[in-house]
Amino acid sequence: MKTILIQPLTVEAFAPFGDVLDITGAPDKLINQGLCGRYHDRATLDFSDGRAGISLFEAKPRDLPLTLEMVERHPDGSQTFVPMSFDPFLVITAENLGDTPGQVHAFETRSGQAINFHRGTWHGVLTPLHAPGLFAVVDRIGPGANLEEHWFDTPYRVARDV
Amino acid sequence: MKTILIQPLTVEAFAPFGDVLDITGAPDKLINQGLCGRYHDRATLDFSDGRAGISLFEAKPRDLPLTLEMVERHPDGSQTFVPMSFDPFLVITAENLGDTPGQVHAFETRSGQAINFHRGTWHGVLTPLHAPGLFAVVDRIGPGANLEEHWFDTPYRVARDV
Repeated sequence: MKTILIQPLTVEAFAPFGDVLDITGAPDKLINQGLCGRYHDRATLDFSDGRAGISLFEAKPRDLPLTLEMVERHPDGSQTFVPMSFDPFLVITAENLGDTPGQVHAFETRSGQAINFHRGTWHGVLTPLHAPGLFAVVDRIGPGANLEEHWFDTPYRVARDV
Repeated sequence: MKTILIQPLTVEAFAPFGDVLDITGAPDKLINQGLCGRYHDRATLDFSDGRAGISLFEAKPRDLPLTLEMVERHPDGSQTFVPMSFDPFLVITAENLGDTPGQVHAFETRSGQAINFHRGTWHGVLTPLHAPGLFAVVDRIGPGANLEEHWFDTPYRVARDV
């Protein structure tokens, strides 16, 4: 089984797949009499013919290494995952090769990072590494399934080391 | 100085002002081979002539009791606050009396609750009670200030007890 090594999540490495939302650097604006920094409009949202909605996801925390059997994508919209606890989580993506997933990548966030998958990006399902596994998800509400799954012939092992 | 007593945040008490997003009750849908519950589309979003955006707010945690000198509202859009740590925070709102704020209310969330202010709802600025004071905010991106402030002639004291 091929191993995918988990890398730290960075803006540069994640750029082909989506946006990293964090408070690196200076805020775009100080508000509330200087008590609050606003890091403004950090996700490329795209809901095509639908509208934005906010849902909560409660996912079972996973142990490493994990076996990756499939990835999925949402052809009609972007999808943002905001952790509701100050814990890192695992983000799995794949490059797009024609119309199937190519090279798989795995990233671990730092505490305080959220991510947004661009519309149509192949990704693994939500994989918290710590309880409570609670996330707010901003994605497209609209007609249609907006879901494609790809099951790998040979699963991958996703791990911190070989 | 009049004291506003802090109440626990409940769906019923908060209904005039907005939505409580939490995972009380059964999920609307089980996804990811049963590993994840989806609590679907829980916020009434309204961005009028603008679009949805996701920003991060880092706010200084506040101590109680606190002095409330002003409330504000966004006439052109709803505003959702998602805590990025598993900590309660304080939510201050006011009823709308004509075009000025009426009775003030203060609520403390439970861990794992987010809130959405309906468009045009008078509210206090973001008041975390614990570090890191980090929130994802879903609100309207668009032209115009989209902000009205009301400064009280006499400030309020917001506290857990008289």
